[in-house]
Amino acid sequence: MNMTAQGDEASHRADAPLVLQALGSFYVGGGIVSQTAAEIGLYDGGPTIVDQMYVQYMVPQEAAKPAVVMIHGACLSGKSYETTPDGRMGWYEYFTRKGNPSYVVDQVARARSGFNQAFYNSVRSGFAAPGEQPNIRRVAMDVAWVRLRIGPTPGVAFPDTQFPVEAMGEFAKQMVPDLSDGLHPDDPNIQALCALAKQVEGTVLIGHSQAAKHIFESALLNPENILGLVAIEPPGCNSSSYSEEQIIKLSKTPILVLFGDHIDDAQSIGPDWKPLFIDAQQFVARLNAANGNATMLHTTDLGIRGNSHMLMQDTNNIQIADLVMKWIDENVRHK
Amino acid sequence: MNMTAQGDEASHRADAPLVLQALGSFYVGGGIVSQTAAEIGLYDGGPTIVDQMYVQYMVPQEAAKPAVVMIHGACLSGKSYETTPDGRMGWYEYFTRKGNPSYVVDQVARARSGFNQAFYNSVRSGFAAPGEQPNIRRVAMDVAWVRLRIGPTPGVAFPDTQFPVEAMGEFAKQMVPDLSDGLHPDDPNIQALCALAKQVEGTVLIGHSQAAKHIFESALLNPENILGLVAIEPPGCNSSSYSEEQIIKLSKTPILVLFGDHIDDAQSIGPDWKPLFIDAQQFVARLNAANGNATMLHTTDLGIRGNSHMLMQDTNNIQIADLVMKWIDENVRHK
Repeated sequence: MNMTAQGDEASHRADAPLVLQALGSFYVGGGIVSQTAAEIGLYDGGPTIVDQMYVQYMVPQEAAKPAVVMIHGACLSGKSYETTPDGRMGWYEYFTRKGNPSYVVDQVARARSGFNQAFYNSVRSGFAAPGEQPNIRRVAMDVAWVRLRIGPTPGVAFPDTQFPVEAMGEFAKQMVPDLSDGLHPDDPNIQALCALAKQVEGTVLIGHSQAAKHIFESALLNPENILGLVAIEPPGCNSSSYSEEQIIKLSKTPILVLFGDHIDDAQSIGPDWKPLFIDAQQFVARLNAANGNATMLHTTDLGIRGNSHMLMQDTNNIQIADLVMKWIDENVRHK
Repeated sequence: MNMTAQGDEASHRADAPLVLQALGSFYVGGGIVSQTAAEIGLYDGGPTIVDQMYVQYMVPQEAAKPAVVMIHGACLSGKSYETTPDGRMGWYEYFTRKGNPSYVVDQVARARSGFNQAFYNSVRSGFAAPGEQPNIRRVAMDVAWVRLRIGPTPGVAFPDTQFPVEAMGEFAKQMVPDLSDGLHPDDPNIQALCALAKQVEGTVLIGHSQAAKHIFESALLNPENILGLVAIEPPGCNSSSYSEEQIIKLSKTPILVLFGDHIDDAQSIGPDWKPLFIDAQQFVARLNAANGNATMLHTTDLGIRGNSHMLMQDTNNIQIADLVMKWIDENVRHK
């Protein structure tokens, strides 16, 4: 496996102490609903809360950079940004060490954010038909191998892959059930992210894969506290679906779109990535045509090879983080 | 609301920097299973992993005390030990600040540990009957109010309650779906906790409520790396169900059982706590009769009033943590 330059080695050494001004967790969003005993599944029914979003954070002692909020992709959780599957420092710690107050969330209906169990308990109790129960998505290891562009077919890695293939089993443990299909079409993730940006009083939103859509929609709903957007491998920017008015609104926020390697290689499972990459290019072009500040960063253009879809976990994840930080330094106004 | 003495105020101030030797997360336990496309819910079927346990940790710069592993109760997650619902420091940070390498887990089939979605997708797809789908447990706010002994009836607090009642809504967001009913009777939490204790090379296990059973069973399975057990409000120690051989095995490990206030007060929802408290007393007596080192600590015996079932979140949570730390200092051999 290639080990490329890891950027500023001294300042992110895992053996240097991590000095924090603050660390903690809280929830944003969510609303009270009344559920029956059958829906609740334990004791009496009554009011409960659904659609809340879990947030964990670290504020470094020297917080000289803008806050960043990191949102994971489909079938994953905030764990994506913590320690990598092979035990290296993740972006959550690295951004903190570099001076950014750092927030990591679990999407609504995922992991510590919980989900609305009523759909499932109602089917179990015979109050709803099995087909009314939302599908729960998970990813088999072989599918992940190909869809995340670790290699062209299961078990065969690209010779230059940056993914820590020896830790594929550990990565598989991170692929937790995705219950997004049960969410209201007016996605509560968007409200929650806007509430978080307001609470933080200004932040860059970093959205991986599925969450790229969330960060674009958050900036459309309320851009006031969103200082910049970093979309990591959006699986479709749906460039043509945005109205000109929406593009003009989005163009007010600096936007970085980041892609890894092997975009052109055909895959044995699922659709190819190439059309999604072209869609992202068109999206960036539309934003810039509207006087926006949008950047398409394809790592291979810089001679960096072998990055998978999991750029924040690849063996050169620090090098990739440095590219994102450089873009933030050069494009995001620090409130 | 009473504010009792908060112990050693200076050293746990949230405004003093938190200096860490290390911080991160990983998974323990879990095994590969093969699932069909219908069970997986996205693309092809194939191998995937179930029964893994998520672990997050902090190691303080000055790690002079034994490691502690904190396990949450039913319908909750590791969030129990992080920032309290009203925004105060939780036990995860406090134990770290006091010199204990601190580990917080999400139980298997909960939160970031994920769960086996196959049961639910199989019902949705018509491959299994609705009744075969395990019940998912959640707790309505009114039920929690009474069962956690915040007050005798929903919305009415005990005059001396230590629970931060103004943050009940924030607490409700922490009560996430509990999918334990889908676990194999040979509970994978036990294997995972023993693996974690081995990896940490010796630890105190702190189990809240539902997890008290997990820590006792872990010590029965493999006590080698378990330095002590702290059971916080076990909802049944099942003292009479253990054989004399099992009691002798458990008696080799120092054990603290901790209970809060209002045990004697009747509750308007669910069974009373009193028989569970008596059961714990009998369990402790059996251990000591077998030359064990078991302590029953009832906070009211020390004149500390108003503690709820959520002792790690009550307004005097630091005072309670100090009691646990004192017991560890006096009873647990630091490896």
